[in-house]
Amino acid sequence: LSSGMYVHVRKMLHHMPAPDVAFLLESTPARSRAVLWQLIDPEFHGDILEELSEDVRNGIIRQMMPEKLADALEDMDTDDLAELLRGLPDAIFQEVLRSMDEQDRQRAEQALSFGEDTAGSIMNTDTITLRPEVTVDVILRYLRLKGEIPEDTDAFYVVNRHDKLIGLVPVIRLLTATADMTVEELMDEDAERIPVDMPEGEVAKMFERYNWVSAPVVDKENHLLGRITIDDVVDIIREEAEHSMMSMAGLDDEEDTFAPVLKSTQKRSIWLGVNLVTALLAAMVSDMFEETLSQLAVLAILNTIVPSMGGVAGSQTLTLVIRGMALGHVSGGNSRWLIGKELAVGALNGVIWAVLIAGVVALWKDDLMLGAVIAFAMMINMVAAGLAGATLPLLIKKMKIDPALAGGVILTTITDVVGIFAFLGTATLMLM
Amino acid sequence: LSSGMYVHVRKMLHHMPAPDVAFLLESTPARSRAVLWQLIDPEFHGDILEELSEDVRNGIIRQMMPEKLADALEDMDTDDLAELLRGLPDAIFQEVLRSMDEQDRQRAEQALSFGEDTAGSIMNTDTITLRPEVTVDVILRYLRLKGEIPEDTDAFYVVNRHDKLIGLVPVIRLLTATADMTVEELMDEDAERIPVDMPEGEVAKMFERYNWVSAPVVDKENHLLGRITIDDVVDIIREEAEHSMMSMAGLDDEEDTFAPVLKSTQKRSIWLGVNLVTALLAAMVSDMFEETLSQLAVLAILNTIVPSMGGVAGSQTLTLVIRGMALGHVSGGNSRWLIGKELAVGALNGVIWAVLIAGVVALWKDDLMLGAVIAFAMMINMVAAGLAGATLPLLIKKMKIDPALAGGVILTTITDVVGIFAFLGTATLMLM
Repeated sequence: LSSGMYVHVRKMLHHMPAPDVAFLLESTPARSRAVLWQLIDPEFHGDILEELSEDVRNGIIRQMMPEKLADALEDMDTDDLAELLRGLPDAIFQEVLRSMDEQDRQRAEQALSFGEDTAGSIMNTDTITLRPEVTVDVILRYLRLKGEIPEDTDAFYVVNRHDKLIGLVPVIRLLTATADMTVEELMDEDAERIPVDMPEGEVAKMFERYNWVSAPVVDKENHLLGRITIDDVVDIIREEAEHSMMSMAGLDDEEDTFAPVLKSTQKRSIWLGVNLVTALLAAMVSDMFEETLSQLAVLAILNTIVPSMGGVAGSQTLTLVIRGMALGHVSGGNSRWLIGKELAVGALNGVIWAVLIAGVVALWKDDLMLGAVIAFAMMINMVAAGLAGATLPLLIKKMKIDPALAGGVILTTITDVVGIFAFLGTATLMLM
Repeated sequence: LSSGMYVHVRKMLHHMPAPDVAFLLESTPARSRAVLWQLIDPEFHGDILEELSEDVRNGIIRQMMPEKLADALEDMDTDDLAELLRGLPDAIFQEVLRSMDEQDRQRAEQALSFGEDTAGSIMNTDTITLRPEVTVDVILRYLRLKGEIPEDTDAFYVVNRHDKLIGLVPVIRLLTATADMTVEELMDEDAERIPVDMPEGEVAKMFERYNWVSAPVVDKENHLLGRITIDDVVDIIREEAEHSMMSMAGLDDEEDTFAPVLKSTQKRSIWLGVNLVTALLAAMVSDMFEETLSQLAVLAILNTIVPSMGGVAGSQTLTLVIRGMALGHVSGGNSRWLIGKELAVGALNGVIWAVLIAGVVALWKDDLMLGAVIAFAMMINMVAAGLAGATLPLLIKKMKIDPALAGGVILTTITDVVGIFAFLGTATLMLM
């Protein structure tokens, strides 16, 4: 690209499918990204925007003229349109809405009326509905006339005259049915439906558990509003699973790998700030034992071992519980059992590693008493780690905070403070 | 359950769909799980086994008689069968194979012949194939006669007389076509196909990128072997995303949240052992400065701050790069740019947090020189963290080791050693 073969690149981009172009843009440093974007035929801008991740997309949109953006958004699916508009800064958002034609604006406003991250926000309105009394023959003639069926249609929805969903007919069933059968005879009446205000995480879980390709969305009165397709659900599953991993490392889950240096530094600074406070807190605990430390330098040397082991054991438990909660396996009913189990694992871990570290330290520093002190501290901290790892996510969730985001820092603060206090405290009592 | 209302529970289980029963089993402690399993109608055992995660499933299978297990496996999809058999201990595996009838055994052996974690291992053989010269009318009559079409069929595959794949016809296109059109007129010729030996992670990426519901699998000579459906791909996406998170915490990704205490303790001990070695290594670095530490206890108190900040900054970079690699965004071509960027972020972070910590320490301990020493060490360690976080995953991957598993420990070892060495080393030079 740097060698300026623009014509060649433009030609190549022109022949690539939209998802591949999106992938290429996401793998490119922010500066080259803008150049690439200029080389892409504006006709495809909409398709490509649909495929990009939020952070990368917003970076590109901010450099586009609102009218051009409105043009690009014309043919977008309702759900993608709403998601994209929600991510825009307010000023641009208003301008884009103004530049749209009447029909698009209405569509956008309707899509935006559903709560963010609910079934409504990932729903498409391109359903094909049937009436129960119609025969297969009539449907087939109607479809041939219509000529096109929306992508990923695996079922037609059956509604009564009040537009209420009463069942669905899988597409493949139409193929095996005889011409004179009616929709009523073919339809599944007890097919699942998704309430429009169901959180998207729940929707994803249902798709995953029941292996759906698409599912109808209804309002409280059971009116058919649209459908959700597996491709949007796959994105949610990916995002949710990544979210935990990224939050546990203190990263915004949409962070663009190729963002500019300043933006990256800024995004990561909150977490480093929180960690600085935590580290200072641990230092203050050590500070309480300055007298002891000044007399026994060996304690300073061994001071990091117990907190470190507690941190690892605690985050194992924490990660497991957070995943269990995300999968829906851990709930009020079995959480007491789980806490009990993790306490037992902590205690057992404590015994094992206490014996080991006691041996290592006693041999290394030739001091049996010192070995006993560090073993005792290890024991205490492992139990604390198990208890904190299992209870923290449950407690934090009750306070409506994301356990993946806050759990790690609080946990290491606990294991650091308990570990240092137990080690230096016991040492002060026993060795001084 | 504990109150012994077995009849009631049995009835309830009987009316639940298989995925819900599987979910219930996964949310139950290992002991109650065995009791629940006894209460389930053996007729549904196969369906439920299909839905369970590997760890939970293996626990259950180990308590089943091989003949009963063989019965339960009778109607299972080829890909699920192969996955299940692969997870079995060798002795049970042989016995189960012996207890199967001839046809099932052949099916199982064929499925097992494909490499683990490749497209072949998640492929089903229930495809419907068409010849190019057939008309829509004939197909519809054939399908009506056949009566049933495999679940999730969204396309029929077109093969020539040598069974080579030459195209596909989306199901919905059959509905809009007129009766006298031929398959040749309707089919997509340039539809993508998946080589049977493609790793399953690659398959998942293709499904995700192109929003497929199913895709044909072919061998090297382009013979149609089967198809992969989105439901299996969703499981892979979930597993891959979880895998990184779990490995980074040093957990086996299939670990069962409700496993017994002994098994859990054992599974987590490897990681704790590795961490103990790391912690001892860091302690040895401190040990080199025993003289300095014994004279200035304040250094012992502040000794954890620099390594801790380096650890957080480093794992932010590490997590981001590992995710970028998992998504395929980071490759040889842009890795130099990325390392440069992360170095810059590390340096900028270094300046910011060096100034802050210098201020805090200078005020707290009323010692300007001490502030300067810790600021310098912070600076060094942040740059080291950025460099290690960006290069480690790339290096580790070159050695064919999973970066998510090994990256974290190596990284914290580096940030601990560099942090302690920089802090105590500078302090020895400047303050002694």
